[in-house]
Amino acid sequence: MKAQIIAIGDELLIGQTLNSNASYLGKVLTDLDIEVQKQVVIGDEEKIILSEFASAWNNFDLIVVTGGLGPTHDDITCETVAKFFKSELVKNDEVLKDIKDRFARLNRTMAPINETQAMVPEIASAIRNYYGTAPGLWIENENKIMIVMPGVPYEMKQMMTNYVLPKLSERILPSGVITKRLTLLTTGIAESTLFSKFGDIKEFLQGAKLAFLPSQFGVKLRLTVTEKDEESAFNKLNELEQKIRSFAGRFIYGKDDDDLAEVVGNLLKERGLTISVAESCTGGNICSMLTNFSGSSKYLERGAVVYSNAAKVEILNVDEDAITAYGAVSKEVAIQMADGIQSISGTDIGLSVTGVLGPTGGSAEKPVGTVFIGLCDQNGCTAQKFNFGDDRILNKQRTTQAALDMVRKNILGIPLDA
Amino acid sequence: MKAQIIAIGDELLIGQTLNSNASYLGKVLTDLDIEVQKQVVIGDEEKIILSEFASAWNNFDLIVVTGGLGPTHDDITCETVAKFFKSELVKNDEVLKDIKDRFARLNRTMAPINETQAMVPEIASAIRNYYGTAPGLWIENENKIMIVMPGVPYEMKQMMTNYVLPKLSERILPSGVITKRLTLLTTGIAESTLFSKFGDIKEFLQGAKLAFLPSQFGVKLRLTVTEKDEESAFNKLNELEQKIRSFAGRFIYGKDDDDLAEVVGNLLKERGLTISVAESCTGGNICSMLTNFSGSSKYLERGAVVYSNAAKVEILNVDEDAITAYGAVSKEVAIQMADGIQSISGTDIGLSVTGVLGPTGGSAEKPVGTVFIGLCDQNGCTAQKFNFGDDRILNKQRTTQAALDMVRKNILGIPLDA
Repeated sequence: MKAQIIAIGDELLIGQTLNSNASYLGKVLTDLDIEVQKQVVIGDEEKIILSEFASAWNNFDLIVVTGGLGPTHDDITCETVAKFFKSELVKNDEVLKDIKDRFARLNRTMAPINETQAMVPEIASAIRNYYGTAPGLWIENENKIMIVMPGVPYEMKQMMTNYVLPKLSERILPSGVITKRLTLLTTGIAESTLFSKFGDIKEFLQGAKLAFLPSQFGVKLRLTVTEKDEESAFNKLNELEQKIRSFAGRFIYGKDDDDLAEVVGNLLKERGLTISVAESCTGGNICSMLTNFSGSSKYLERGAVVYSNAAKVEILNVDEDAITAYGAVSKEVAIQMADGIQSISGTDIGLSVTGVLGPTGGSAEKPVGTVFIGLCDQNGCTAQKFNFGDDRILNKQRTTQAALDMVRKNILGIPLDA
Repeated sequence: MKAQIIAIGDELLIGQTLNSNASYLGKVLTDLDIEVQKQVVIGDEEKIILSEFASAWNNFDLIVVTGGLGPTHDDITCETVAKFFKSELVKNDEVLKDIKDRFARLNRTMAPINETQAMVPEIASAIRNYYGTAPGLWIENENKIMIVMPGVPYEMKQMMTNYVLPKLSERILPSGVITKRLTLLTTGIAESTLFSKFGDIKEFLQGAKLAFLPSQFGVKLRLTVTEKDEESAFNKLNELEQKIRSFAGRFIYGKDDDDLAEVVGNLLKERGLTISVAESCTGGNICSMLTNFSGSSKYLERGAVVYSNAAKVEILNVDEDAITAYGAVSKEVAIQMADGIQSISGTDIGLSVTGVLGPTGGSAEKPVGTVFIGLCDQNGCTAQKFNFGDDRILNKQRTTQAALDMVRKNILGIPLDA
């Protein structure tokens, strides 16, 4: 099954909204072995929408459309779908009831405009919307499927999970070959250094595919194998993974959708360890990442965002003289911060960061991008210096990633300079 | 000038990477009055790339391509561009020097594979890459322009800022009409409630366009006017803005790209106020948002991530009996947390959040999504209760937004229940 994703909305074209829906849809459809070959974004204009529908309907088996289903005047997707299929818009009583119930539940008055959202093209089945008022549409015709959903990400995802994905799964028939993917997530190693470790890449891969995907969080290695059955694909992926781990294992923190913060959280949980974090330049981002996962109260005891020197001294008992002698951004202060947060919280690990994220605050000795990360555990304290770039937000993300990776290496007994 | 953006990369199609480049490009091209009519994502496959190039070259004046320029075997964009224009790949000495200098500067050994990145189609001018090794390409032919850049966002953005945007600006000629846009950012009001305040929308707009863009951060109102000159466009936008502010002003926290955290930071700075934040459920996210901007040390004194009850009691002096009597998620504890962080830090404002973000931890009395936000200033303390949804990450973002908005309203003297 070959698919095209169409997102409708001027806000996407002019860059006001990030097309996170296409990325989500790409992922879940690929997981079903549906080949997403094209994503398109177009504006809220009838002529352009109709022309894109026609081209997609000619070339693909599945077309997934998002956006333009809201209650306001600039949303024209539903009428345009009706026009494309030459189908009447009819009032759907179930949808109307859902909308009314929703407003009653939220104790809000229903605006008359919301009633028009219960008008559905006759050719379509309505997909219920648990988080909003616009229904989705499921249309089957000429052996093809068109699915239309709201552009609001959580409304669309709910429809995918509860309705679309289960229904699509039923349709997918097994074919002669199986494609499987595995992504290994590395951090702390440059793309070209990593690449050169593979030697002759074609010989290494033996027909499999490998993509290098760099970002500020590290380089992802995406392996794709196509084999005759599930077992061969699994074995091939496994063999390649082991080969890669043999020379780059210490840089690999996870697979596929793993998040380093979740990996670290799980390691802490498994080993019954607790952590506390003292953050200066990351401003709370490390704690925020660690608490994105349910159950994080099991391992994160507390954090301190010690932006001012007073806060470093008062909360963490950092020695004022050390700040004067070495500067707030220094190995000594990083270690005292990690030691301080560990002591006051009584956790197994104390983590700290202090740095100059920029764009201002740099000096010749400590230019923008200079960061010290400190870590204390039952064996003592250590700190590492990093030199990141010029961009404040990228530096924050890199510092967070490097600090979390330092915890990962510490727990797993991987030397820090490896 | 009409433009299409093409992103090349399997990682985008399968949803492994978010297409943030398209959103950035949409924004900066729109700002130049270039009309981005289509965004397309396709995979790293020569046949598909060539076919999309052909269709784009037929229909648009400007084609901006990103992705597939890396040093590894799966990057084929540069060769495919050469093939499309039937142009030879030739070694570019300036690019080669840039690559060599870069490796020298970073004290790294240059991999032989990086040398191939200095091969550029003869038809193209090379665009220098300050952050990476792959050069960009600028091609002019048949009165059309094709620009090819790396997919790594910061490399691409640097090329846009230093080379592409200045060069494109020279080409844009003034025409008979001017299009101007203004986006008003609201939070704390539902899309349909906001819409109903406009009355007859066509009469209200008098020919202007208005889009409602909802998200977990609030509803954005994007106004577009087309007028005969800059001044008329400015006046029309201004008139519409004032009309909208007359009935929804208190919900409007900013314009265009404003970020609520930056708006709040600027308000604090302007008025010489300081803030400290005690976060439970948001885990540091509020502080992290407040510190995304240079100069935030002027107003953020410190933050405490008090995930455990012990931390609430030890750092913030919250009364243990209050936690037992009312629960850690309660109005009383929220107020004590705000009061505690304000007292220990000596700031003008103390802000606190405590809540159940889910998916676990809810009860009949305090279901998942229940959040209390507390605020203390020189006039005393207050707390508000919010009922958000089921999704942990969305709840975190909504709580952060609501807490920052509470600070905004507090500083501007807007009643909290408005």
